[in-house]
Amino acid sequence: MDVPAVPAKVDPDVLTAVLDGRWAELKRDVRAQLTYRDTVGLDVEAHRVQVLDDLRKLASCFNAAYGDVGGSVISFEMLGFGDLSLMVKAGVQWGLFGGAVQLLGTSPHHEKYLHRIMNLDLLGCFAMTEHGHGSDVQHLHTTATYDPAAREFVVHSPDSGATKEFIGNAARDGQLAVVFAQLITGDESRGVHAFLVPIRDDSGAPAPGVTVEDCGHKAGLNGVDNGRLTFDQVRVPREALLNRFGDVAEDGTYSSPIESDARRFFTMLGTLIRGRVSVGGSAGSATQRALTLAIRYGEQRRQFRRPEGDEVVILDYLGHQRKLLPALAKTYALHFAQEELVATLNDIAPDAPAEEQRELESRAAGLKAVNTWHATATIQAAREACGGAGYLSENLLAGLKADTDVFTTFEGDNTVLLQLVAKGLLTQYKEHFEDLSPLATARFVAEQVVDAVRERTAAFIEPLMESGLFDREWQQRLFEDREEHVLDGVANRLRRAAEDPFGTFNAAQDHVLLAGRVHVERVVLSAFARAVDDCPDGDAQVLLARLCDLYALSTIEADRAWFLEHGRISAGRAKAVTAAVNSLCAALRPHARTLVDGFGIPEQFLAAPMLRG
Amino acid sequence: MDVPAVPAKVDPDVLTAVLDGRWAELKRDVRAQLTYRDTVGLDVEAHRVQVLDDLRKLASCFNAAYGDVGGSVISFEMLGFGDLSLMVKAGVQWGLFGGAVQLLGTSPHHEKYLHRIMNLDLLGCFAMTEHGHGSDVQHLHTTATYDPAAREFVVHSPDSGATKEFIGNAARDGQLAVVFAQLITGDESRGVHAFLVPIRDDSGAPAPGVTVEDCGHKAGLNGVDNGRLTFDQVRVPREALLNRFGDVAEDGTYSSPIESDARRFFTMLGTLIRGRVSVGGSAGSATQRALTLAIRYGEQRRQFRRPEGDEVVILDYLGHQRKLLPALAKTYALHFAQEELVATLNDIAPDAPAEEQRELESRAAGLKAVNTWHATATIQAAREACGGAGYLSENLLAGLKADTDVFTTFEGDNTVLLQLVAKGLLTQYKEHFEDLSPLATARFVAEQVVDAVRERTAAFIEPLMESGLFDREWQQRLFEDREEHVLDGVANRLRRAAEDPFGTFNAAQDHVLLAGRVHVERVVLSAFARAVDDCPDGDAQVLLARLCDLYALSTIEADRAWFLEHGRISAGRAKAVTAAVNSLCAALRPHARTLVDGFGIPEQFLAAPMLRG
Repeated sequence: MDVPAVPAKVDPDVLTAVLDGRWAELKRDVRAQLTYRDTVGLDVEAHRVQVLDDLRKLASCFNAAYGDVGGSVISFEMLGFGDLSLMVKAGVQWGLFGGAVQLLGTSPHHEKYLHRIMNLDLLGCFAMTEHGHGSDVQHLHTTATYDPAAREFVVHSPDSGATKEFIGNAARDGQLAVVFAQLITGDESRGVHAFLVPIRDDSGAPAPGVTVEDCGHKAGLNGVDNGRLTFDQVRVPREALLNRFGDVAEDGTYSSPIESDARRFFTMLGTLIRGRVSVGGSAGSATQRALTLAIRYGEQRRQFRRPEGDEVVILDYLGHQRKLLPALAKTYALHFAQEELVATLNDIAPDAPAEEQRELESRAAGLKAVNTWHATATIQAAREACGGAGYLSENLLAGLKADTDVFTTFEGDNTVLLQLVAKGLLTQYKEHFEDLSPLATARFVAEQVVDAVRERTAAFIEPLMESGLFDREWQQRLFEDREEHVLDGVANRLRRAAEDPFGTFNAAQDHVLLAGRVHVERVVLSAFARAVDDCPDGDAQVLLARLCDLYALSTIEADRAWFLEHGRISAGRAKAVTAAVNSLCAALRPHARTLVDGFGIPEQFLAAPMLRG
Repeated sequence: MDVPAVPAKVDPDVLTAVLDGRWAELKRDVRAQLTYRDTVGLDVEAHRVQVLDDLRKLASCFNAAYGDVGGSVISFEMLGFGDLSLMVKAGVQWGLFGGAVQLLGTSPHHEKYLHRIMNLDLLGCFAMTEHGHGSDVQHLHTTATYDPAAREFVVHSPDSGATKEFIGNAARDGQLAVVFAQLITGDESRGVHAFLVPIRDDSGAPAPGVTVEDCGHKAGLNGVDNGRLTFDQVRVPREALLNRFGDVAEDGTYSSPIESDARRFFTMLGTLIRGRVSVGGSAGSATQRALTLAIRYGEQRRQFRRPEGDEVVILDYLGHQRKLLPALAKTYALHFAQEELVATLNDIAPDAPAEEQRELESRAAGLKAVNTWHATATIQAAREACGGAGYLSENLLAGLKADTDVFTTFEGDNTVLLQLVAKGLLTQYKEHFEDLSPLATARFVAEQVVDAVRERTAAFIEPLMESGLFDREWQQRLFEDREEHVLDGVANRLRRAAEDPFGTFNAAQDHVLLAGRVHVERVVLSAFARAVDDCPDGDAQVLLARLCDLYALSTIEADRAWFLEHGRISAGRAKAVTAAVNSLCAALRPHARTLVDGFGIPEQFLAAPMLRG
């Protein structure tokens, strides 16, 4: 199949400038500051020592000021090129712990703690997750009961399920923890709030009433000291409550600007989305690094001879291109979507309407899920694409795989997050529906019937010639149409939920998750299309346009069963999509090295012996 | 959708008996002998010491007699429940090194070495893979040049690409290596042969002319001492040649029962397929262990409440079932296919026709690829299904993931293996075609045209009602038809290869790989169907029948785009397949624990703290 022309040569620096975008200057600075330290073969304690040491170096030169939201998220993203234990440790200390003090606390907390958190005089934890409550944090069991006589809160773990689990900085270094607990005052529970609880004394021993357990060796990220925290009637002063969203007066009277316990809790969580955004961004960096390694290897590794006699560079094989190039296209796509997300997060007004805030949270959740699943799949493919060499730790992919594997789980389990995205869309849907006049509702129902008939007859006539596959508008319409249709379907199914809410929802769960995924895919394609439109360099723009085609068409190919089942494309066109993906792989193959070099990863992070030949 | 009834309760021991099959007694013995030793947090040297120690214990009680082919393969499979470093080390020592001496050598070699290899007085390596020649072993660079004056071979690595790479037992323990090298005598190269080359002296230092390098830390399998071997004009006596398939007389005259160098080499490789079969089998064991851990966890872990109030066990969620139960069905399917493969390997006559031998090799290659990819995907899903707990080393999934990750690469890269399978099928195809009379050929072409028309018009009428989805014959016909059609298509495309053989083949590579995959899937479904038919227990038979449905239908679902594109199923039926997979998940959910307990994995290998609640 003929693919629209691709320029002969594009300068990778031009791509780097496009990818760096709005925070280009900061990214240049961070690139210059990052230093590589080998972690292969370090035991757990040695790795932890090294990471804490590196964290202290970062503190003196790293711009993680709490005012610059976008800048700090971008900084975490850049740390994703290096030792991911350092990225996570920095994220725990400055993003989660410091972020909670800043965003859930008030001036006295800021004055007392923020400076010491920034310069690492005070190391801390973000103790939300419980052993029995990983995803369902709203129902965690730890309690903080107000004692008006002593003007203190009593923080307590009532059962083994209440043990705080997988808490970074807890096993070795943390002194203070932000502990999430059910606030109880005057015998009434007010839902989850955050409290500052010292977990170690000056000697480093656990504080009285606090039990600290080391989570021990993990699949990866062994430079982070994850631990478990249990509280036995630990008393903290009334001021330990981070009281921006809810406060307790000396006499025990509770007050909050937000009436509903649930809404208050989700508002608190909403302020903490930076962590989720940062994980998505650093997953992207790790993916870029893995692809750079695998594509460079694929360009020099030869295996098997042509009938004509010379040995073939493995990236010249279609099968090898298929493993790496669609993943490369998606990595670009996600990068641009992530960049838009960070910009929105940075620019949102503190008093933005709730709807805008919810939209941001939903986008953060969805992109985190898609970015981290993509990292898991792509780093796996990169390892396999480097064969035995990819399995040796010295070649870096083993560590990347092990370290990123938990990204799909922490900062929100991906399955739960996609469900959250779908629920958000359904809420909007319901609101939209409630606005409809009876006439509009009837028209909507009629459209659904027409749709169903079209599908059942499969009498769908292809409106476009094959060349239309590269028509961006057609691609985008297809993504939009799929999203709309899936959402309609889910809404219809869930409308019948009255008599058996759990059963109905559960039977549709795969459909709900699909709604979340196709929504994110549509958002990501839009972002890539916009980035292509905005590209200031002609040749780079053409190259990116073809890469965007590869993202769009390989995504359609992966889900072509859906498009076929729903009469959106014909069987012939579905086969043409597969042929187009193959042709795009061939057309982009000569630019593969340029495209990964465009990520601008400092060479020190790519020093794999397998690339020395 | 209504699923045929499933019995209320099945005894897991009955399933174990069915799964254990022909080698049940041996499996019982090995289960009783296996002992668990923790490896978490061991450094590389400590892990190597422990594995060598465990290997010595195995040597005294383990039945790895070279005569009992099936039994030794089954024993390796059972080792797959434990520390996979031990399985690999045992495989290197007894399977690859000992197997090469037995199968490529002759009586003097057997008498001199086999007993000492068995009892571990002599530790050795299988030095085939080279740095520059991982998959393309036929073109490796190491030379063994005969010097008639000294009656010695001179083994030499002429360039850095000739370094033997990733060689188990090389870095620490091996004394002797089976080195694959191009045999040169009288200035003529005779292709690849195997030579016994001492690599260490009695003190453990590298032998003169041999350079040993440690591959160092790896993603997993760190109990195996992989290393690199380079030879600088190393002299070995004439008798060092393993001379079953080719010999050199004292005067340098070469002789062989097989004329063609290439055919001789592939015959030699063919004798070594036990290793490939063992890797597939132990990948299956590791997958079974991962699924047992994840399903037990899914049955006790609760998260989120029903509207009615109680917390839901996560395996009750459809999304969670979807992650684990189709994988469980495929694990059963692959187990039965593997069992048939081992039986064929065990029973094949030494003088079996070449065609039968080729069929066996092809099946071993295909099942190894599908088994190990399934292991990679399923262990990953199991880790994610256990959330943060799955990431802690103490819960065993992290080690399983890291250790099995290279299975897709070693003993033949999976992509190369699937291609091998397809090429084998195409060879048969070509032979079949050459047999056809002109009339039969014309009929064949006409059938293809009819097929194409049927697809193009998509006027395909559904012949069966929905309930027909559970019709095994229909399922099998669908798999067979797909295989035939894909193969026809590939053959057609490759027939045009005359002017640009590499270009034509490469453009069809995805199609070729598809042919390999769908062939294996058909073989696997047949094996599962036979196992269901042969099941002696009525209730167990019904349960296995539904599990077989889940394998068949989830496989169809995953590839339903193909069936739609080729007019094999209608859009409505494709959607019905998805609905049937969901219904089967719900119907099998109550039996999930029984089904994993049926694997009969000793409890000591399942002692994950996360399962203590």
